[in-house]
Amino acid sequence: MLRALDLAEALDGGDVTPSGVVELIAEAIEAREPEIRAFAHLDLAALRLAAGRARTDTPLCGLPVAFKDIIDTATLPTEYGSPIYAGWQPRADAPIVTLTEAAGGLLLGKAVTTEFAFLAPSVTVNPHHAEHTPGGSSSGSAAGVAAGMMPLAFGTQTGGSVIRPASFCGVAAIKTSFRLLPTVGVKTGAWTLDTLGLFGARVVDVAFGLAAVSGRDLRVDGRDFGTPTFAVSRMPFAGAAAPEAEGALEAAIRAVERAGARVVDIDFPAEIVAAQAVHATLYDYEGGVALAWEIAHHADRLSPVLKSKFMPAVPIPVAAYDAARGVAKTARRAARGVFSGFDALLTYSAPGAAPDRTTTGDAAFNKLFTLLGTPAVNVPGYRTAAGLPVGVQVIARFGADDRALAAAAYVERALQS
Amino acid sequence: MLRALDLAEALDGGDVTPSGVVELIAEAIEAREPEIRAFAHLDLAALRLAAGRARTDTPLCGLPVAFKDIIDTATLPTEYGSPIYAGWQPRADAPIVTLTEAAGGLLLGKAVTTEFAFLAPSVTVNPHHAEHTPGGSSSGSAAGVAAGMMPLAFGTQTGGSVIRPASFCGVAAIKTSFRLLPTVGVKTGAWTLDTLGLFGARVVDVAFGLAAVSGRDLRVDGRDFGTPTFAVSRMPFAGAAAPEAEGALEAAIRAVERAGARVVDIDFPAEIVAAQAVHATLYDYEGGVALAWEIAHHADRLSPVLKSKFMPAVPIPVAAYDAARGVAKTARRAARGVFSGFDALLTYSAPGAAPDRTTTGDAAFNKLFTLLGTPAVNVPGYRTAAGLPVGVQVIARFGADDRALAAAAYVERALQS
Repeated sequence: MLRALDLAEALDGGDVTPSGVVELIAEAIEAREPEIRAFAHLDLAALRLAAGRARTDTPLCGLPVAFKDIIDTATLPTEYGSPIYAGWQPRADAPIVTLTEAAGGLLLGKAVTTEFAFLAPSVTVNPHHAEHTPGGSSSGSAAGVAAGMMPLAFGTQTGGSVIRPASFCGVAAIKTSFRLLPTVGVKTGAWTLDTLGLFGARVVDVAFGLAAVSGRDLRVDGRDFGTPTFAVSRMPFAGAAAPEAEGALEAAIRAVERAGARVVDIDFPAEIVAAQAVHATLYDYEGGVALAWEIAHHADRLSPVLKSKFMPAVPIPVAAYDAARGVAKTARRAARGVFSGFDALLTYSAPGAAPDRTTTGDAAFNKLFTLLGTPAVNVPGYRTAAGLPVGVQVIARFGADDRALAAAAYVERALQS
Repeated sequence: MLRALDLAEALDGGDVTPSGVVELIAEAIEAREPEIRAFAHLDLAALRLAAGRARTDTPLCGLPVAFKDIIDTATLPTEYGSPIYAGWQPRADAPIVTLTEAAGGLLLGKAVTTEFAFLAPSVTVNPHHAEHTPGGSSSGSAAGVAAGMMPLAFGTQTGGSVIRPASFCGVAAIKTSFRLLPTVGVKTGAWTLDTLGLFGARVVDVAFGLAAVSGRDLRVDGRDFGTPTFAVSRMPFAGAAAPEAEGALEAAIRAVERAGARVVDIDFPAEIVAAQAVHATLYDYEGGVALAWEIAHHADRLSPVLKSKFMPAVPIPVAAYDAARGVAKTARRAARGVFSGFDALLTYSAPGAAPDRTTTGDAAFNKLFTLLGTPAVNVPGYRTAAGLPVGVQVIARFGADDRALAAAAYVERALQS
């Protein structure tokens, strides 16, 4: 994998040029992209031109960054994973693209998304085993980083679309606090849930990239945050986890305990557990509204799985939606108290390793934290006997993206030692 | 003015056809539009075709509805009031357009907006006096309704862009509760503030239209909601109001007292007053991010007033923005308690009547309620000696759009009797 932080340091020190990094990427693309299919749109000629003009005296030092193809770009098509938008060319870049370029990053290309970031599997395959899903919906972002073709890649999460593919592909990723990064110019799935995330090789790489783009003090490399206190929840209300997910979680618990951290078990109060069940109500209602034009005018070009969710036979009553918003609000308030008792929560990233390509996997252990708006980080490191990656999820209180990244970096280091 | 509710009843009863309504509109456009300039885009041939196919057995009965030109439409250009988007044709309708059509409404045309719904005056003039501003930023929506060219028109408010032009043009309008209507496909100014609103001739017309499009029980015609309790605040922390604004407010107070309502004076607690000052921090920071692409690539085609706000010489520190978000959150919580003590708050809609066309007026008495997310209704009726309209503002607690409309209708009736 391409380690963004190491590359940036080499760029900063003049040991490599932006054009040199682009050639590393181009080689990886030539070697892996025909099988992996992580890119929706790519213009290597434009990237080479941009690299020639790149400035290394910037936070991102001229590093190329990929964007999920539900994020608008003015110079590359944006198709939202749907034939309805075949060849569609937005007028403007989404602000996250401009912010990345303002920080000295280059537009590497567009990463494959599932249809409107929903559940229908995409063409992308898991770099660790071509018969397995890379996860969804940020399939191309996770697989592109895992295959060494992208140093950094933005994705989005409405259910579990950042943490799940990161776990399946064995890369680090953060789903940021709700609204930490602007979702303007990003195709809406559900406006109370949609959140940007960033993928990289390691937690330090993700933290480096997020700090550069957000202008916030979020780097965790070379810093000592002390020893965090961890809480563990197996979230029984979210369903069962497979032995490989339990194996990854137990490996992480043992590693941080060995490193000297305190680990306590916690149960979520009923107000938070209740929110798990209303995520679907929020997503299905808002998704149906957000895609109103596509549903009204192009239903024939929507996948069956999307139609079954956003065009239900019996529409969701507006009173049920309003009640769900109330449950979500109560849960967010309750979360403030729960998360004040420890530095970070440790739990599963996904119910198991990547399943086959008929599905993109299950967001059971992610959607609660998307709804709560809390930052969540996937820490890679564990592998199944068959060689498939399984991550663990590190979550901190709303707004404490720094704390989530620091705790995740602690877990990552502990797993390696 | 075209009264939406009366037209809908006539359409429903077969007394007029959708094509007949379109011809009424076409006549008004022929008579007034050359002077008023309320339309950014209009296709009367397409509207006549749509009228021929319209269904009157729908909530909107085939009534034409206009949309501010920061709301995307798939069949008419959308220019956001900026030369950067000259001739821009979005691929999709914003969901609010599809919801309106699903309710049986027709796309009447695009209403003029100021540049990105900000402060630079547009070409539109006040139908009551061509030397005066119609207000902004929903200039065309307010002027189009006032000039009898639009039965209903959607606008948006980030500061005071619905209530202020409604007051200046003498029409009714509601700024809805935050997120009651979807802002998907609406050009973002500030994501924590942007809110859709609806303009009509009277409060009953606005309530009828909003009920039809939102699918919520919001109509106030022919219903008895009892006698509301009003609170009055002159919001001294927002600055001074001119005698004509005080005249409009006192006329409303006298009218509702005469009708039997109880009116009490209230002071806002410090937590709410504090929010007035942070509105600008939220808008300026988020506006600069939301328009990042335009600022980075097309600064030469931005107005000086927009540049001065969103390209400040000294950028707003992210810590100041985060602090402002905290102040806003605290104020929203405090508002729940304050608004539980009465049915509706009465205050100024604007500091006075419409000023000249070098400005779009002042949002001093609106921006707090945009930030709080509470529904606000402009009630027309009062005129200055010079014949310029001045409205009063009726506000209810967050989510109680029904209560705001019922109280506003009560004020409107009281002013007429």
